[in-house]
Amino acid sequence: MLDKTLAELGESESLRLTIGRLIQGEYTLVGPGDDAAVVKAVDSRFVVTTDTMIEDHDFRLDWSTGFDLGFKAVASNVADVAAMGAKPTALVVSIALPSGTKVSWLQDFADGLNAGLSELAPGAAVVGGDLARSDKVFISVTAHGDLQGLEPVLRSGAKPGDVLAVAGTLGKAATGLALLERDDSAKSAFDELVSIQLRPQPPIALGAIANKVGATAMLDISDSLAQDAARMARASGVSLVIDRSVLSGFEAVLDQAAMRLGVEPLEWVLYGGEDHSLLATFPSNVQLPKGFKAIGKVIDKADSEVYLDEKAILGRGWDSVTG
Amino acid sequence: MLDKTLAELGESESLRLTIGRLIQGEYTLVGPGDDAAVVKAVDSRFVVTTDTMIEDHDFRLDWSTGFDLGFKAVASNVADVAAMGAKPTALVVSIALPSGTKVSWLQDFADGLNAGLSELAPGAAVVGGDLARSDKVFISVTAHGDLQGLEPVLRSGAKPGDVLAVAGTLGKAATGLALLERDDSAKSAFDELVSIQLRPQPPIALGAIANKVGATAMLDISDSLAQDAARMARASGVSLVIDRSVLSGFEAVLDQAAMRLGVEPLEWVLYGGEDHSLLATFPSNVQLPKGFKAIGKVIDKADSEVYLDEKAILGRGWDSVTG
Repeated sequence: MLDKTLAELGESESLRLTIGRLIQGEYTLVGPGDDAAVVKAVDSRFVVTTDTMIEDHDFRLDWSTGFDLGFKAVASNVADVAAMGAKPTALVVSIALPSGTKVSWLQDFADGLNAGLSELAPGAAVVGGDLARSDKVFISVTAHGDLQGLEPVLRSGAKPGDVLAVAGTLGKAATGLALLERDDSAKSAFDELVSIQLRPQPPIALGAIANKVGATAMLDISDSLAQDAARMARASGVSLVIDRSVLSGFEAVLDQAAMRLGVEPLEWVLYGGEDHSLLATFPSNVQLPKGFKAIGKVIDKADSEVYLDEKAILGRGWDSVTG
Repeated sequence: MLDKTLAELGESESLRLTIGRLIQGEYTLVGPGDDAAVVKAVDSRFVVTTDTMIEDHDFRLDWSTGFDLGFKAVASNVADVAAMGAKPTALVVSIALPSGTKVSWLQDFADGLNAGLSELAPGAAVVGGDLARSDKVFISVTAHGDLQGLEPVLRSGAKPGDVLAVAGTLGKAATGLALLERDDSAKSAFDELVSIQLRPQPPIALGAIANKVGATAMLDISDSLAQDAARMARASGVSLVIDRSVLSGFEAVLDQAAMRLGVEPLEWVLYGGEDHSLLATFPSNVQLPKGFKAIGKVIDKADSEVYLDEKAILGRGWDSVTG
């Protein structure tokens, strides 16, 4: 049965064999199977974000298993919920697959969704979805969150004098990608870096915690530290100064792989995407929550948006249209 | 500028030129532009549903303009919200387009979203989205709704003795598709039928109204009357009897086109998809809301799920995986 393809089984049976595997959530009032789901919104508001992953643009099927893609789809979306200072509650997942895909692949994808939810967003669940046919794999997730009575943390609230801090990895996902692209023995030597590319580990719970202690601005680093810091600076009408010396800790863990591939590790730390770590600003009198590391400060708007010590850096990174 | 392609403009600029056109909603607390949006959920719950449309599977770019696709994406998704007995409040929209697409196409799509919202779901708005690059056009929409303090109307609540009723068109969208496929002068002779295929007109407001008067079960007819009635019967553990004579009114409006194309109009009424009309059951003592038409009744579970008068009919229709 599991060797059968989606075309052989049809939509209903393929879904039946998959939906039954999904974990239940704490916020689900009506789950999959009707025209729509119903989800609790405890404080009468909900946070909502959507993101799409497309084969050969955002992933390759010879690098990522169905499990990896399920995990990554959860991670990248709940990171956006966390970046608002909210707790993830519910996801809907649309997936389009070639009709020759085996249903076991779809089940593996569902298991990856489950693993991502259990590890990163316990209590949240997939409450609905859509299965369609296409030549390339297309995964679109919409994630929801609960602000638990607090105000959302926007990217526009950074104030001069605030501390700039990051929670999560910087450059590991990009290094993992470089290792996969090189496709030689280096790949197996740096298994953990490859795994961060395939199954990112953003510190989701820290989003709501940062909100509770008074973070003034927050976003998730999906395109690059440089790019997303520039977005925060622009939205807040300030400039950001990153302390070069503090980044050395992030570079150090990439050193071995960087040497092997002949790359400057700072390049990955500043310009690598897909770690989905949280970049936040806090008033200077706030004790940073455990897991956040101060990497700089907010200053009055200057000529450039982001500085590395005294040097202006450009906000380059991944663009989902131009690549 | 509007002649420029998405690749020439990049993601941020393409989005900037598009998002500014979107209408504002009554439920939006934080709109597009941050990591996520924030939406009011007045009664501490929200309804959520998702649906995907894929080029050459669900639409053809030589038949549908960007405007048509925006309108249809709204219609097909808010119909699922309405079918739960809820009022649509907010949508997020993911779209993937070839990088050579002109930004004017994307703006036309946004205008279609606006028109669909204004006509079908006033008060609701697009609160977020995602723009990506792909060879084929993919459109994935997640729609949200407010139950206004009522319980959701599931497809599983139909009871023997209930009246079966429909609100909206039956078979018009399928007839429109047949006309487009024929691609001759018939197309312009039956403009209204083609327009229902391209821009469906489900009676969205009637979903919440049906809920208020006590509908026991409801779903939207996306695949076909026969198929979706069978789903309702299965979920409710009952059988449904459709009154053949009542369908003649639905057939009559298709007669001319059916004659031109040499098709039996009942075929379209029973087995045509994409009208997104509401199929609901009501206790027999309830006065049907204006816009609903009784087409049959609910009986105890029998050998078949759906009967046309005494004749069992099969639940065939569109399958999104096998086509």
